[in-house]
Amino acid sequence: MPDAINTLTMTIPKTMMAVLQKEAGGPLYFEEIPTPKPEKGEVLVKMEYSPINPSDLSFLQGSYAEKPSYPAIPGIEGSGTVVASGGGFIANLRKGKRVTCTSTHGKGGSWSEYMVTSAMNVIPIKSNTSFEQAASLIVNPLTAIAFIDIAKKGKHKVIFNNAAGGALGKMVVRLGQANQIKVISMVRNDNQVKALKALGADFVINQTNHDFRQELKKIMQQLRPTLILDAVGGPMMEELVEFSPEGSIIMPYANLSEEKSAFDPRKLLQQDKKIIGFFLGNYTSKQNILKVLKSTKVAQKLIGSELKTDIQSVFPAASANEAVKTYKENMSIGKVLLDLNINR
Amino acid sequence: MPDAINTLTMTIPKTMMAVLQKEAGGPLYFEEIPTPKPEKGEVLVKMEYSPINPSDLSFLQGSYAEKPSYPAIPGIEGSGTVVASGGGFIANLRKGKRVTCTSTHGKGGSWSEYMVTSAMNVIPIKSNTSFEQAASLIVNPLTAIAFIDIAKKGKHKVIFNNAAGGALGKMVVRLGQANQIKVISMVRNDNQVKALKALGADFVINQTNHDFRQELKKIMQQLRPTLILDAVGGPMMEELVEFSPEGSIIMPYANLSEEKSAFDPRKLLQQDKKIIGFFLGNYTSKQNILKVLKSTKVAQKLIGSELKTDIQSVFPAASANEAVKTYKENMSIGKVLLDLNINR
Repeated sequence: MPDAINTLTMTIPKTMMAVLQKEAGGPLYFEEIPTPKPEKGEVLVKMEYSPINPSDLSFLQGSYAEKPSYPAIPGIEGSGTVVASGGGFIANLRKGKRVTCTSTHGKGGSWSEYMVTSAMNVIPIKSNTSFEQAASLIVNPLTAIAFIDIAKKGKHKVIFNNAAGGALGKMVVRLGQANQIKVISMVRNDNQVKALKALGADFVINQTNHDFRQELKKIMQQLRPTLILDAVGGPMMEELVEFSPEGSIIMPYANLSEEKSAFDPRKLLQQDKKIIGFFLGNYTSKQNILKVLKSTKVAQKLIGSELKTDIQSVFPAASANEAVKTYKENMSIGKVLLDLNINR
Repeated sequence: MPDAINTLTMTIPKTMMAVLQKEAGGPLYFEEIPTPKPEKGEVLVKMEYSPINPSDLSFLQGSYAEKPSYPAIPGIEGSGTVVASGGGFIANLRKGKRVTCTSTHGKGGSWSEYMVTSAMNVIPIKSNTSFEQAASLIVNPLTAIAFIDIAKKGKHKVIFNNAAGGALGKMVVRLGQANQIKVISMVRNDNQVKALKALGADFVINQTNHDFRQELKKIMQQLRPTLILDAVGGPMMEELVEFSPEGSIIMPYANLSEEKSAFDPRKLLQQDKKIIGFFLGNYTSKQNILKVLKSTKVAQKLIGSELKTDIQSVFPAASANEAVKTYKENMSIGKVLLDLNINR
């Protein structure tokens, strides 16, 4: 082929629509910009759907680890079809595939009509998996798998997980069952309690119960979870540090409360506890590529099982501001998706 | 000898005076109680002086790791003379020796006329070391040595230490110099800046400067300390977490501010930072006994050097409440000692 860019028969337009943020913390715009071109080892994905994840909220606030140059396209994962390869064995292999994918730092995010990303960041999906379901098939499963790996390596027999009513919480429960690791799930309402119990979860506590603090203390003293996953942050960290057994690891992985975490340092130091942050990007970058591929295989197995992602609503990408607002107002009832196919 | 207890020629009275706390957080009493008897492997020390340490304040608040049964005698270290052995090679060897010593959990603290402790917890002092100086020769030196060991093992080339104007801060600076580890010392006034500079400290910042926050940020970005020792706790942890380089370990080892520590969990998780408590008791219990003895030898070398402990005042043990109050009001100007020799 004369052109280094190996396209499908379809025509790729010279410009595309993309969600843009012009400064950290600023509003989102939906504007026409040049369609990016993949380089060697990269692919161009025509995007279908992309979820709003807690990490996206950090990105929008400007507090994400990987600082973008502005204007920036947000979005860390999504679904679509590979429509061009920049060359290279794996990139060429992915051409024409329906995929779930993550963005590559410096290449623009997933909230756009087209996204260039590393060929290693796209995973073909099964023909019976919808693009809506495929939109959030990487971040949650890889996170759940990482938690279970950390638990196994650290010989933690019991895990505590808060904000556990969502898709990630369910995956942690199922992977825990499969690996003989007990999981205590903290949720925010009785429907979530029922949904987790239906999945076979043995230990679920509802943080809106009037005697929640006592319940939390009691269950932590009885089951002695030594790996405490904390997606919430804020003042509850004090209780997680206080009630967890000696030698525990408290692992913040999100800050859904958007409040500062606080704790009594004496409890930490005298009882040999550690607070160790977990960030999927950092974690996977320390794994070798075979390990990540193995994890994505496990993730693929979860696709199409009862671990479907609950979707609360789908917004056209042009309404990204409204979509973010809706997600922030109620994260627990399901994912909010952006529809990136402007011709749908 | 007919008696298993191997005493010096001096007579040991059947009762002694001791500082007693009757409940966690309660006031201190000075009362007559039976003199304890050493068992095998233990010695009886006729106490001379004992300092008030930050750990003692935790003990008095009831928040110390090793919970006593009440009434309890406080005090974790001090100086005195071994007047009896409960038998055993090392215990017998220590008989008659002037010593610096620490208390043994379950055996009563050092704020009493006589203390029973493990023979492993007493270290003979040189004849030219005064009992006043010998009173705080274990906790600070072993802590400083542990910090340097942790820095060397973790390959930290630069350490940050706050509340660094006291005896411990000086030891960290000197041990850092001896081990090619740079130390950034944060202090509370210009006299402490001068005292540390006189010791050869290169990097000292005064937290009362009006542009302190900027100074802290600048020095942390320039020197990139990756081991952050935090004796203060409270809201400053937020800046320590924010300004320290990616991958840093923040290590709380006291809570002098008596405030909760607070931080932004996103900074922790995205930048791969860890908060790991340090508690000397836990640390030494994980070392083998040879390592601890080696450390005490290093500590002995520090005795009589320019690293003398500054003593701000000496109170009779009967005035322990007043002594504690004085220490809490101004910890930085020097140790407050309790005089445990009621016949002095």
